[in-house]
Amino acid sequence: MAAGFLLVWFSFFILLFSTISVAKIAPTFPSSIIRPEQLLLSTKHQLYKTKYFTQTLDHFNFNPQSYQTFQQRYLINDTYWGGAHKNAPIFVYTGNEGEIEWFAQNTGFMFETAPHFKALLVFIEHRFYGKSVPFGGEKVVAYSNTSTLGYLSSTQALADYATLIIDLKKNLTATESPVVVFGGSYGGMLAAWFRLKYPHITIGALASSSPILNFVNLTSPYSFNDIITRDFRSESENCYKVIKSSWQQIGDTAKQPGGLHMLRKSFRICKNYIDADSLKNWLYTAYAYTAMTDYPTPSSFLSPLPAYPVKQMCKAIDNPTTGNDTFAKLYGAANVYYNHSGTATCFNLADDSDPHDLSGWSWQACTEMIMPTDGNNKESIFPASEWHYEDRVAYCKFHFDIEPRPNWITTEFGGHDIHMVLKSFGSNIIFFNGLRDPWSGGGVLKNISKSIVAIVAKEGAHHVDLRFSSKEDPQWLKDVRKQEVKIIAKWISQYYYDLAHFSA
Amino acid sequence: MAAGFLLVWFSFFILLFSTISVAKIAPTFPSSIIRPEQLLLSTKHQLYKTKYFTQTLDHFNFNPQSYQTFQQRYLINDTYWGGAHKNAPIFVYTGNEGEIEWFAQNTGFMFETAPHFKALLVFIEHRFYGKSVPFGGEKVVAYSNTSTLGYLSSTQALADYATLIIDLKKNLTATESPVVVFGGSYGGMLAAWFRLKYPHITIGALASSSPILNFVNLTSPYSFNDIITRDFRSESENCYKVIKSSWQQIGDTAKQPGGLHMLRKSFRICKNYIDADSLKNWLYTAYAYTAMTDYPTPSSFLSPLPAYPVKQMCKAIDNPTTGNDTFAKLYGAANVYYNHSGTATCFNLADDSDPHDLSGWSWQACTEMIMPTDGNNKESIFPASEWHYEDRVAYCKFHFDIEPRPNWITTEFGGHDIHMVLKSFGSNIIFFNGLRDPWSGGGVLKNISKSIVAIVAKEGAHHVDLRFSSKEDPQWLKDVRKQEVKIIAKWISQYYYDLAHFSA
Repeated sequence: MAAGFLLVWFSFFILLFSTISVAKIAPTFPSSIIRPEQLLLSTKHQLYKTKYFTQTLDHFNFNPQSYQTFQQRYLINDTYWGGAHKNAPIFVYTGNEGEIEWFAQNTGFMFETAPHFKALLVFIEHRFYGKSVPFGGEKVVAYSNTSTLGYLSSTQALADYATLIIDLKKNLTATESPVVVFGGSYGGMLAAWFRLKYPHITIGALASSSPILNFVNLTSPYSFNDIITRDFRSESENCYKVIKSSWQQIGDTAKQPGGLHMLRKSFRICKNYIDADSLKNWLYTAYAYTAMTDYPTPSSFLSPLPAYPVKQMCKAIDNPTTGNDTFAKLYGAANVYYNHSGTATCFNLADDSDPHDLSGWSWQACTEMIMPTDGNNKESIFPASEWHYEDRVAYCKFHFDIEPRPNWITTEFGGHDIHMVLKSFGSNIIFFNGLRDPWSGGGVLKNISKSIVAIVAKEGAHHVDLRFSSKEDPQWLKDVRKQEVKIIAKWISQYYYDLAHFSA
Repeated sequence: MAAGFLLVWFSFFILLFSTISVAKIAPTFPSSIIRPEQLLLSTKHQLYKTKYFTQTLDHFNFNPQSYQTFQQRYLINDTYWGGAHKNAPIFVYTGNEGEIEWFAQNTGFMFETAPHFKALLVFIEHRFYGKSVPFGGEKVVAYSNTSTLGYLSSTQALADYATLIIDLKKNLTATESPVVVFGGSYGGMLAAWFRLKYPHITIGALASSSPILNFVNLTSPYSFNDIITRDFRSESENCYKVIKSSWQQIGDTAKQPGGLHMLRKSFRICKNYIDADSLKNWLYTAYAYTAMTDYPTPSSFLSPLPAYPVKQMCKAIDNPTTGNDTFAKLYGAANVYYNHSGTATCFNLADDSDPHDLSGWSWQACTEMIMPTDGNNKESIFPASEWHYEDRVAYCKFHFDIEPRPNWITTEFGGHDIHMVLKSFGSNIIFFNGLRDPWSGGGVLKNISKSIVAIVAKEGAHHVDLRFSSKEDPQWLKDVRKQEVKIIAKWISQYYYDLAHFSA
C-alpha cells in the first residue's frame, strides 16, 4: 500500500509538467485577473506599454553562441513618474516563470504605490517565458532540446535584468534614479537575489513569498504539505480527517468492479479519462492551490475563488446534508476550486492547457530548482510518503536527459545560516510571508538585520501583499502594505541623502 | 609625428600578447621567486601539496556542453591548520591569470600568518591557466578557437572557487571553518568580488592592489602612465626629462642612415631584430614593470631586481659619467631591469617566452577586461596619446574575431559610485594599494565603511604586502601587514562569536 501511495505522488510529480500541477514545484501562484479597481485604473490610463530589449543570450561566456541576442519583452508605465530630472524612482518587477502581463496584472501594489512615489513602473519578462524566447522567439525551437533550453537559468535572468535596467536608465537619462525591485514567489526570489548580487543596480527589494530556503538540506520536504494540512485543520478537525481518510477510500473504490465508474459519477468527471491517481492529483491540486491563494477577498486564478476559500472548502466538507458520503463532501470542496461560478457541467482530469505559459518551469525544476515539497509525515492531510531526490533525477533523466545540480542554488546564492551570513552583509530587503501559504516554510520568517527584515502575516497567503487592494481588505493586510510603503520610502530618502553626500 | 607616436602605442598594444607586454593590460605583476626566508620555510616543510578537483565547465547554463568537466589544480598546505574539529580557518588564494604555483610562491604573507591563525592554506588555480585547462587539459585545444576559449571568464572562475571551496570543506568535515580569501592584482579583484558575490562562502577578503575601478568611464586612461611618470619624476626631474625626451630621439635616430645599427649597438640588442617601435616597447616595459615592482627590498620577477629599482634606474640616468649620451643613460636604466645580474651579453627585443603561462589574459582583455591604461597627457613621461576603445575593438576583431563587452564588468560587479553603493552594503574587505603602483589609480583608496577599508601605502608597489617578509622591510610595510593581520583576526573572532550565537 505504501508503494501505491508513493506511486500516487510519483505520478503527481510526473504530472507536474502538465499545467495544473506545475504550480506544485513552481513557487509562483497566480493570484487574480484584473479586479474592478484595476479596471478603473486601466480605463483612466493604459496599464502599460509593451517594449522590447535586445538581450544577450549568454552573459557569462564569450563563445560565438553567447553573442546571439533575443528580444526581451518589458512593460512600462510612466503615468506617475516624476521624471529623470528629479531622479524619480523606478520600480522594477523581476519577472518569474510565466508571461509578464499576467504578473503585472496581479501586482496592483506597484500600480497603487507608484503615484505616491512618483515611480516609473517596469515589468521585465523572464527569458524563455511569454514573448521573451531566445532562438528567434519560437518556443518550438527554444524548447526543442537541451542545447537551446540550457540558457534558461536564474543567473542569466538576473544578468538580463541588470543589463536591461542599466540600458533603460541610460536611455531615459535617469542614471541617478533609484531602482527598487519587486517580485512574488520565484519572482520574489529573483528580487531578493538581485539585491544581494547587484546592489549597484537596485537600492532595495520587496521579495514577497519568496521561498529562497526551500532547497535540499535547508527546508524540510514535509514543510509544504504540513502547511496545507495546518490550513485545513485550522478550519475544522473533521475537514482534515475527511480529506486525510479519503485517499484510501478513493484507492479502494477504484479497485472494485464498477468503482471507477462510480468515482466518475461522484466527481462529475467528463468521459475522457479517469483513474485513481489522476483523481487524487486533481484533488491535491485543488487543496494545494486553494491553500496558496487563501486570500481574504474574492480572487481569480485559473478560475474564480471566493474569499477565504479554504474555509469554504471545509464548509462543504462539514456540510451536514452530505451525511457520511465522503465523495459528495470532496466533490463539494473541489467545486469551490474548480467551479465557483457553478457553470461547469463536468471536469476534465487531463487538462493540459497552459494559458500563462508556465511550462518552462519543468526545465528549471530539473536543473537548478530542486525544491523538495513532496514529503508527508503521518500527520499530513495527504498519504505519508518520503521525498526522494532520486525520483527527481529519474524524472529529469527521462524527460530531458539531464542531471539536476541540486546544490547549485545554495552555492550561488547561499541559504545555509542565512541569518548569520547576512546579519552584517547586505541591506534593504523585505521578505514578506503569509503563514497560510505552503511556500512560507521555505521563506525568511525572522528579521536578519535592521534593514533585512521579515514581515510575517499569520493570516496571509501567497504574495497577498502585492495584489490590488480592495475595500474589503482586512486591517492586517492594510497594515502590511503600509509597513512596506514606509520601509521603501526610507530606502529612497536614504538614497537621495547619499546621492547628495556621497556620490562621486 | 603625432600619428607616429600613436602608432608606437598601437603597436605596443599589439605586442601586448607577447609575454613581455602582457603585463601592460594584465594587472598582475609577478613579484619574486622564492627568497631565502621561503627556502628556509620550504626546507622545514613542503610548501604545499598539489591536488585536483573535478570542476564543472559552465556553471550558469545547462546545455550538454555545460556538464563537461575539467581538472582544476589547487595547492594545499595543512602544516599549520588547527583542524576541522576546532573550526580553524581556511585561507584561500583566488588565483589569477597565470600558473598558481607562481602566485603561491609569491604570497608569503599567507604562509607567514598561517601559524598565528592556525590556518589551512589553499591556492586555487584560475581556469585556463597553468594545469587547469578545460577540454582535456590541452592548451592547444582549449585555446584553439573562441568556442572553447569562451569559457574563460571571471564569473566562471568565481563560481569555480565557490564550488571547490564548498566541496573541500565538506570533504574535510570543516563546513564551519571560516574562509578568508586573498588575492593580488587580478587575483585581488577576484577576492573582492568573491566576498561581494559569495558572502556565504567567505567571511572576508584581502584584495591587494586590485584595480577594480580601472574600467571604461571609471578611471582615467591616463592614470596608469601618470603614476609611472610620478614615480620616476619623484626620483629626479632630470631622470623624467631624459626619458620623456628620449622617444623622439630614438625615432629620429632610427630614421637616419645607419641609425638602427647605432641603436642596436647602444642598447646591446642581439642580432635577431630591431626597429624603433620594438625598442620603445622594450624600454616602456622596463619602466612600467619596474614602477609596478618598486619594492623596498631586492626581488625577482622575470629577472632579479635591486631594492628601490626606480631609484636605481634614475641613478643610472643621472650618472654624470654618461654626460649627454641619452642612449647610454637609457641603456644603464634598462640594465637595472633586464640585467641586474650583469651576465647578459645582449638583449632580445622579440622575446616571447611565457614561463608563467599568462597568455590567456589576452583573451580576457578582449572580452571582459577592458581596462584603459594607454593614455598619455602632455606631462607624461611617454609620448602624448589618447586611449581609443576602437583600437581595442580592432585588435580583438583581428586576433580573435570577437567583440569586447566593455560594460559587462561594471554591470556584473559595479564600480560606479562604489562608496555610495557599498557604504551600507557588504562588509569585511581590505583594499590595499601602494601608490607607487601604476595600478593603484584604479584601486579603492578611501575607506568605504567601517569594515570595507582602504589601506594605502605611499611608498608601496604592486601587492607588496602579500610578499614574504624580509629583515630589511621598512617600518611602513611591517605596519601595513600588522594592520591587515589585526583586521583579519577581528573578522575571525567575530565569526566565532556569531557561530556561537546565531548559527542555525
